[in-house]
Amino acid sequence: MKILRINMSNLTVKAESDEKFRKLGGRALTSTIINDEVPATGHPLGAKNKLIFATGLLTGSGASSADRYSVGAKSPLTGGIKESNAGGISGLTLRKIGIKALVFEDIRDDFQIIHISKDGVKFADAQPIVGKDLSEAASYLRDKYGKNVAVWLIGVAGEQKMNLAAIAGQDRDGEPTRYNGRGGLGAVAGSKGVKAIVLDASEVEKIRPNNKETFKETLKKYHGWLMETPATSKVLPELGSSSLVETTNALGALPTRNFSIGTIENYKNITGETLRKTILERGGEGTTTHACMPGCMIRCSNVFADKDGKRVTGPIEYENIGLLGSNLDITNLDTIAELNRLCNEYGVDTIETGGALGVLMAQDVIRFGDENGAIEALKELKKGTPLGRIIGSGAELIGKIYGEPHVPTTKGQTMPAYDPRAVKGLGVTYSTSPMGADHTAGQTVRAQIDHHSKVGQVEVSKNAQTVNTIWDNLGLCMFSSGAVQNRWDILAELVSAYTGEEITGEDIVNLANETIKVEHEFNKKAGFTKADEKLPDYFYEEENKASGTVFDVSHEEMSTIGIEREDL
Amino acid sequence: MKILRINMSNLTVKAESDEKFRKLGGRALTSTIINDEVPATGHPLGAKNKLIFATGLLTGSGASSADRYSVGAKSPLTGGIKESNAGGISGLTLRKIGIKALVFEDIRDDFQIIHISKDGVKFADAQPIVGKDLSEAASYLRDKYGKNVAVWLIGVAGEQKMNLAAIAGQDRDGEPTRYNGRGGLGAVAGSKGVKAIVLDASEVEKIRPNNKETFKETLKKYHGWLMETPATSKVLPELGSSSLVETTNALGALPTRNFSIGTIENYKNITGETLRKTILERGGEGTTTHACMPGCMIRCSNVFADKDGKRVTGPIEYENIGLLGSNLDITNLDTIAELNRLCNEYGVDTIETGGALGVLMAQDVIRFGDENGAIEALKELKKGTPLGRIIGSGAELIGKIYGEPHVPTTKGQTMPAYDPRAVKGLGVTYSTSPMGADHTAGQTVRAQIDHHSKVGQVEVSKNAQTVNTIWDNLGLCMFSSGAVQNRWDILAELVSAYTGEEITGEDIVNLANETIKVEHEFNKKAGFTKADEKLPDYFYEEENKASGTVFDVSHEEMSTIGIEREDL
Repeated sequence: MKILRINMSNLTVKAESDEKFRKLGGRALTSTIINDEVPATGHPLGAKNKLIFATGLLTGSGASSADRYSVGAKSPLTGGIKESNAGGISGLTLRKIGIKALVFEDIRDDFQIIHISKDGVKFADAQPIVGKDLSEAASYLRDKYGKNVAVWLIGVAGEQKMNLAAIAGQDRDGEPTRYNGRGGLGAVAGSKGVKAIVLDASEVEKIRPNNKETFKETLKKYHGWLMETPATSKVLPELGSSSLVETTNALGALPTRNFSIGTIENYKNITGETLRKTILERGGEGTTTHACMPGCMIRCSNVFADKDGKRVTGPIEYENIGLLGSNLDITNLDTIAELNRLCNEYGVDTIETGGALGVLMAQDVIRFGDENGAIEALKELKKGTPLGRIIGSGAELIGKIYGEPHVPTTKGQTMPAYDPRAVKGLGVTYSTSPMGADHTAGQTVRAQIDHHSKVGQVEVSKNAQTVNTIWDNLGLCMFSSGAVQNRWDILAELVSAYTGEEITGEDIVNLANETIKVEHEFNKKAGFTKADEKLPDYFYEEENKASGTVFDVSHEEMSTIGIEREDL
Repeated sequence: MKILRINMSNLTVKAESDEKFRKLGGRALTSTIINDEVPATGHPLGAKNKLIFATGLLTGSGASSADRYSVGAKSPLTGGIKESNAGGISGLTLRKIGIKALVFEDIRDDFQIIHISKDGVKFADAQPIVGKDLSEAASYLRDKYGKNVAVWLIGVAGEQKMNLAAIAGQDRDGEPTRYNGRGGLGAVAGSKGVKAIVLDASEVEKIRPNNKETFKETLKKYHGWLMETPATSKVLPELGSSSLVETTNALGALPTRNFSIGTIENYKNITGETLRKTILERGGEGTTTHACMPGCMIRCSNVFADKDGKRVTGPIEYENIGLLGSNLDITNLDTIAELNRLCNEYGVDTIETGGALGVLMAQDVIRFGDENGAIEALKELKKGTPLGRIIGSGAELIGKIYGEPHVPTTKGQTMPAYDPRAVKGLGVTYSTSPMGADHTAGQTVRAQIDHHSKVGQVEVSKNAQTVNTIWDNLGLCMFSSGAVQNRWDILAELVSAYTGEEITGEDIVNLANETIKVEHEFNKKAGFTKADEKLPDYFYEEENKASGTVFDVSHEEMSTIGIEREDL
């Protein structure tokens, strides 16, 4: 396979062998290249930052839930290294073309469409889709390049180099709604003039596992586990990630009114059950149990339709409900869907957007619960007005712009929908992960532990950080991790049989830990220290009345993981 | 003398002896208390930050240019320790009342007037002056508390907790125009509800030096030097700090169009000579050679009047001309005066405001040179509109809000009016000072060195950082340093004779170096590292065409000073 380096300043392309990266995939690959090649103290929107798309080690193998890919860069939001991964078919299509990773280098002022096929790379002026909503841009690309292409896109937020700008990939149905959401990677794409990447896998050879028989045998076991585990065979297919609303609300962890409390009065209106019921009742274009990747057995996604059965947006995920819903004191699914739709049209991270609106509500710039106010405010983002720019800068900066100390962020990034006072393991992850506040960097909400107790949370988070990184490196969806448990050998067998690189379960774990280490190394060079590995003051000082807890895992205990200590 | 601690949450006052701080004054005192008592990773607008006003070791002694005082806190702008000092009569009045330092603790939501006299401390609701321009607020306070009081005030910016909010003290004429400008200290005051401090020195005992005869003798020498040195006896009295315009423009160091180049076409319109000529020709309320403190022999200040001789504002300083003038492509003194006036009415740092408007101009939100556009934009700050909030957040954040990499800041703070590519010693100071970009933390522009060469700049900056800190500790105006040269013994004699604490010239130097060390120590706990001790990329990469130079003092050489290295 190839590593393709594209210099956006002069639009030249260089293909390299993936020789030295054979055993790396996904996040391990993006983070290694960044740590090796990007100056850690450089400006994230400057010429020396690199934007890397890397397929997972299992991407394209046909294993269920394994077609994810990573995007990485130095983040304008956190100032540190960032990896954000997504499903859909764009990573898969890149892999089909025989490309393991794309590395975008340098910057440019105008916007380009980068067309990649077996015949090579072509560039086109992106002017026709600049400033357009993503659904319209995707439709233009399909018309121009054919119905079978897959795309990556940035929206108006990325064009404006906003901190909450994301990169959108495409799902099975051609919708550009699979998001590399976190860390402002869309702004990095914007700084490089990468408006759209069009992937055309026409006339390419079919991907074949290196050792077809072994792969098939091992796959059976893996798929068997997915089928026999209730989470992957029943809960997630039926309710999707939103099944968590009921759980976190009961724990007092559902972010409500700018993370001031962890439960909301009308939570029944926004549970996974209500979402499912609403979608099924309305019928039409809405659907539950929707797969974003071909062959995914979990099918956690959905399409939300309005009262007339017309598609509004998809998917509505747990994080969207938490951040664009309860966090804003909004418990109306139609409003959440509309906010979600706007995020998808503008190309922004829903979590960061919800965090931004939440801080603005804490400052009474918009009232809590003002559904129309939230929608209208978000529309300013597209217009690029001062208010739009403020929203586009993300929660952390809004806190600084308005002098608001209640800002639910670590390393500059908004927390996903878990109050760290009520799921303390995630508080440890938010604090110590190289990624900043990111549940996918060390998800502990499903761990068998008293989430309100401070005991054992560092260990739980540490393990979760390793497990999630394994998944990120392989291109696996984290929802399969409950079914796999810690049976790394099977994953290693799948990778070995697929890629022909012999690796063991231990290698897989080591690679994950090495990845995290490399990321902390970059962050350290960028200026991060233990002082960055804590939550904002108010989580320690102000009780979450729903859980009756403050965050009290000690800084000292957290210091045993995370960035390397100077005194060790 | 007393240290007065005022808890703003419950409005209680505690007087302490200054016993353990006898040998500390000004910056040494504020920085020591902050490092000892403020949690370094805490929120700058949170309850645990402290806001400290401390008089210099010579304040009130009657020595020329010695009545300065320091204000310190953890800065919301830099995230590190901050000290900002000013002249005028407010520090002097505090000293007259027998108070060495005021320490404001905790936070509150409403705004208070704090009245301090020999009879103690009284609090009053500040509502009548909330939202008002500072000249109006000062006039209200004079009407209410008497013509002889001195005040400290924050303006609408501080009330809104904006990053560029400053604290205004009062000059000899009762104008609240002596500024603790840098670091957003006005926002810290705002968070604590400290709207105004009214100092009434009625019926207090006259200050007498501990050893009157020695003090008088030594003072003669010091005053003699001021009289025999051309800078302090002629250039500064005549032209004020603006005498520098001619010098820096010739060096290619005068910030022009958002620090893109170091010279401006019509610089003749904004030189110190032109300023003086304009003021003298217009007559009326305008004046040059104006002293901000009683007995100051340097008298560098001025009052600028309009064409009808009516006072517009004062003083117009070099930094204001550089940041609100050339940096915005504005070379009209009347426009600069109007921008300066608005800054003084709103209570903001002129340097940070000019930096903010410069970045907005780089983004074409306002056009370069659009005089009316700049004035109208600044007015938004008072209104608290989204654009006003953006301006109020300072240059660093505006760069992040708009994705603009050309942002002339270090440690989050806007550079004063010296392009570091053309005065490289200041580039070293900006990088390595605990204060961020701040000329008063290590001014090298008057050093006998080739400012375009990289050779020797680290040494020059290091010495300047020590000298400036000595001045900050003593309450001396830095403009006297050229006359004193390095004759520390005389300064030590003055301090010993005035305070009764025997100190030597060596002690004075050691105290300054210890102060800087304490500040770096705080910053290190707050998370600063060597990665924060560099200039933004573009100063290394893009030539300043006026000087024909980039900044090229190596990071390695700069690393020999500044924050403590991990590997040393």
